[in-house]
Amino acid sequence: MENFRFYSPTEFVFGKDTEQEVGTLLSSYGARKVMLHYGGGSIKKTGLYDRVKASIRDAGLEIVELGGVKPNPLDGLVYEGIELAKRENVDFILAVGGGSVIDSAKAIAAGVPYSGDFWDFFDRKAKVEDAIALATILTIPAAGSEGSPAMVITKEDEGLKRGSGSNLLRPKFSIINPELTYTLPMWQTAAGIVDMMSHIFERYLSKTEDVILTDRMMEATLVSVIEASYALLNNPEDYEARATICWAGTIAHNGQLGVGREEDWVTHALEHELSALYDMTHGAGLAVMFPAYMLYNLEEDVERFYRLAVNVFGVGDNHYQKKHVALEGIRRLKRFFNDIGMPTTLKAAGAKKEDIPLLVETLKKNKGESFGSFASLTLEDAKKIYELAWSE
Amino acid sequence: MENFRFYSPTEFVFGKDTEQEVGTLLSSYGARKVMLHYGGGSIKKTGLYDRVKASIRDAGLEIVELGGVKPNPLDGLVYEGIELAKRENVDFILAVGGGSVIDSAKAIAAGVPYSGDFWDFFDRKAKVEDAIALATILTIPAAGSEGSPAMVITKEDEGLKRGSGSNLLRPKFSIINPELTYTLPMWQTAAGIVDMMSHIFERYLSKTEDVILTDRMMEATLVSVIEASYALLNNPEDYEARATICWAGTIAHNGQLGVGREEDWVTHALEHELSALYDMTHGAGLAVMFPAYMLYNLEEDVERFYRLAVNVFGVGDNHYQKKHVALEGIRRLKRFFNDIGMPTTLKAAGAKKEDIPLLVETLKKNKGESFGSFASLTLEDAKKIYELAWSE
Repeated sequence: MENFRFYSPTEFVFGKDTEQEVGTLLSSYGARKVMLHYGGGSIKKTGLYDRVKASIRDAGLEIVELGGVKPNPLDGLVYEGIELAKRENVDFILAVGGGSVIDSAKAIAAGVPYSGDFWDFFDRKAKVEDAIALATILTIPAAGSEGSPAMVITKEDEGLKRGSGSNLLRPKFSIINPELTYTLPMWQTAAGIVDMMSHIFERYLSKTEDVILTDRMMEATLVSVIEASYALLNNPEDYEARATICWAGTIAHNGQLGVGREEDWVTHALEHELSALYDMTHGAGLAVMFPAYMLYNLEEDVERFYRLAVNVFGVGDNHYQKKHVALEGIRRLKRFFNDIGMPTTLKAAGAKKEDIPLLVETLKKNKGESFGSFASLTLEDAKKIYELAWSE
Repeated sequence: MENFRFYSPTEFVFGKDTEQEVGTLLSSYGARKVMLHYGGGSIKKTGLYDRVKASIRDAGLEIVELGGVKPNPLDGLVYEGIELAKRENVDFILAVGGGSVIDSAKAIAAGVPYSGDFWDFFDRKAKVEDAIALATILTIPAAGSEGSPAMVITKEDEGLKRGSGSNLLRPKFSIINPELTYTLPMWQTAAGIVDMMSHIFERYLSKTEDVILTDRMMEATLVSVIEASYALLNNPEDYEARATICWAGTIAHNGQLGVGREEDWVTHALEHELSALYDMTHGAGLAVMFPAYMLYNLEEDVERFYRLAVNVFGVGDNHYQKKHVALEGIRRLKRFFNDIGMPTTLKAAGAKKEDIPLLVETLKKNKGESFGSFASLTLEDAKKIYELAWSE
């Protein structure tokens, strides 16, 4: 186990009808003028938009609005939000939506008190040293951004999708009502499930030895997510299953499952090129890239893939045939992704084979010549993983 | 799953040599004059006391000292601490020790800005509405107070041991270096292990249905703690085992394992009467009371004791004989407590059989005529549980 810091100061307010508390919560955290940040029209259709505004108004707070966040959120709207927040003296941002809306809100929160270009945080030219407060009402369990310090923004004209983060960007509070996710289409639910599982895999596939307690916690979470996913295929309004998935998405990324180990995140980097080039749903890209990454790097740690296969995918514990067991675990992961409607090949995800060199080239721009900690990879390895992901 | 709030804002700084960072951390949290609160001489013997003082002085902060906290911390020293802190304008309390020291520090932190008698918080006459900041350096993994809002203080002249708490009393940061626990005698290590396992049992034994993700997280934690305990019997300086136990003690009580379920805490109440009357080590008292409580209440939820037996104690999953399996799980828990040197009967713990009516009488003073949520108990039930714990 390595030395670690675990810091997750966000207050999570979880359960039925909890969005009704948003006005009171904003008040208790000192908000006066709130920027309501959201995506398309879905929160208006479901009535969430009206309920949230009513609650904020009842608390006597002012509201400024900025909708229009797209999946894979763009820098353009962030610039707009920063200007608007400055002009209107906004002191609190409330993101109502999924990871894209929350990430966009984080970038705005960091950009407001910063004198330079907010992209500096993504270019590694500057660190976030101040931010206005933010909170969230989660509508898509997936990215874990409601409990994380991280954000990912796409610079539209250069096609760059990059991450940054700071503990200053952790939400003050996050409201998570599983019922709000009943209306999510299964595709989006499934993409979210892949996303949260991937957040666990990026931590699970680690070279740090003997962090057995968190290994077991991660396995417990993965097993519960898979079980709940099948329950949702039968009944999208299964509250307990929705609740399990919502909470799993949060803890998969608030840090508690990563304590004491080196994390990797190379598969996320491989995927970011896909969603930047094709505007592919992040979860769908991860469903393609993770099995390929695992297959390519099986030999790095057969023992680890063996315990994943046995403890999460229920493969028999035949220790005479560890590699076969490990491989069967990866096959079952693919089968699970397919069962919930996700693609597991680049072909099925709508990518073009001839784009692979381009993907590798952009990866080089974003990550350099080599990357990865569980497996140390070169650009040549990345190319082979993309090829493996093509149709295998 | 029930609605819940999860709020654990404490920054946990975990690992080797982390106590060296205490001065810098105190500074970053705005401390100027720090009250160093501790117990007996052990931190002086190990050199921790000198290292901590040096780090605080290097950060340019002033120090006021108050040692002398005893296990089952007493109200007398709390009054003394409140006076001292006021007189010296202390703005931060650093507790260096185990749960008793941290709880004493919390009571002082709450008492300083309060105009009345701090015991009002324990008498339920007042709520904590303000507190000075506190932080901890943990030396005994057990109570989980380093990450919890809770505190337990004994009112010496009335023999009352009572709990209270507030999110305002959560430490700003807690430093946890597993190496600092190498010198703990096995008795104290074992008492701590029982304590943290009991914090999990108070949550695990719940009537709330379908919080399967946290059920599994708790089982993962219990399995890891038991495994690490046996490792420590062989080698008290096994870093990974110490680290597992330290972190398990923290997460057992910072709230993350209790999300979404009704918690119970009746066995803690039964035990508090023991440690108040005999000055018994809390963990030893719990090792006596939990198996008796479980046996007495087996029929409340055989399924739950069955899964505990199978998933934590490795009893075969014979679903034709669930009650036998469940009973064997409780027997294995007792055997485990005995293996690590804990008593599992009142007799072995040094209690007197003729005191049982007195224990019940004080319980009545503290908890009233009936209590408990997993099992709803009367004073007559409590008497029977004490009797069952006598020599069974």
